[in-house]
Amino acid sequence: MALPAIILVRPRNPRNIGAAARAMANFGFDDLRVVAPHPPVWEEALASAPGAGSLLRRARVFGSVAEAVADRRRVWATSAMKARGGLARELPRVRPGRDWGVLFGPEKTGLTAADLEHADGLLRIPTASGCPSMNLGQAVAVLCYEWGSRRGGNLAPEPRVPAGELERIVEDSAELLERAGYRPALDPEARRARLRAALKRRGLSGPEAGVLREVLRRLDEALGP
Amino acid sequence: MALPAIILVRPRNPRNIGAAARAMANFGFDDLRVVAPHPPVWEEALASAPGAGSLLRRARVFGSVAEAVADRRRVWATSAMKARGGLARELPRVRPGRDWGVLFGPEKTGLTAADLEHADGLLRIPTASGCPSMNLGQAVAVLCYEWGSRRGGNLAPEPRVPAGELERIVEDSAELLERAGYRPALDPEARRARLRAALKRRGLSGPEAGVLREVLRRLDEALGP
Repeated sequence: MALPAIILVRPRNPRNIGAAARAMANFGFDDLRVVAPHPPVWEEALASAPGAGSLLRRARVFGSVAEAVADRRRVWATSAMKARGGLARELPRVRPGRDWGVLFGPEKTGLTAADLEHADGLLRIPTASGCPSMNLGQAVAVLCYEWGSRRGGNLAPEPRVPAGELERIVEDSAELLERAGYRPALDPEARRARLRAALKRRGLSGPEAGVLREVLRRLDEALGP
Repeated sequence: MALPAIILVRPRNPRNIGAAARAMANFGFDDLRVVAPHPPVWEEALASAPGAGSLLRRARVFGSVAEAVADRRRVWATSAMKARGGLARELPRVRPGRDWGVLFGPEKTGLTAADLEHADGLLRIPTASGCPSMNLGQAVAVLCYEWGSRRGGNLAPEPRVPAGELERIVEDSAELLERAGYRPALDPEARRARLRAALKRRGLSGPEAGVLREVLRRLDEALGP
């Protein structure tokens, strides 16, 4: 499980799940995840994944993006758009790291703003401005080719804590702020989004997460039951 | 027409023609050619090529590989196989040149030995040995990504004569040898294949082709009507 996990968010066409699995197998990837309100149609996916059946059978289905990325230390969202506010990086300039995950959005609509909250950065495949949007299976193939087994031995360890640990700190902080009587104009979900964005911007190392958890525990005790 | 022509040899599935067109448009390619005994089903191809309709409508259909590559100065055949006799080059190590063409074989069977006669070299996308064979549309996407517009300005001119000119020299030589009474064990087609392979191995520059044509003309005169 060294190479990044490929995470298909609400794919509409089972053939594209199969195509993604085949491209992953072509380049030595192993960890396919599908975020979907309903389980994908594996029979149809299998038909478009010759040689990648066992990878496809090991694919995991999650109910939300947060669950799908919980054990990932860095999460990229793929995008056909040009850099927004300098946040996007170009695929050829990024080398893959250990325990990463890459989100691919639904075929027609792409990732939503809520999906992007769970990403640490935007990754852009440098397509032509006249035809920027790629076919889902082809986008996965290009990413797997660029990050694939030909350079697979050189993955750097990622010092960040997994996304699930950061998410628990976000949840605990939001809950604690509420108990402490902090009631800003923002609704609870928007407040969580702000906290998440602030913590994601540069990630949390293990020791940093430890300090934050300790602060939250102390505040929790101070506030009483 | 600076970037290489993408040449699909007898594709079976019209959706793959559309997928190839879309990937080409994504990365600034413009010249799609289809070699097929029957015209492809453009309506089905169009459905899988959003944003690439005009490229698809400009695609040209040829009856043979020889015709499809006639104006190309260097022709690569893509292959999932490991280097055979050291002839294959790995895609990431080859930079594209002007007036090149790239052959992609049919989905299930790949290119035949007869198709390969018209190639100057084998180009291998470095896939995993456990699942080497790529989906056609994904293979085109990976090639277009690697050779695409992000590096499109740096195409080197190719000093070789186009494949059609070399093919005419092969034909004239074979005919002349026959007229001269040269009757080896090989049948005429096998003899042409030998000549073609010998000339293709390092290609012909314009002046070299001129000398060969002059030799053939003299021999032709010497043999009489």
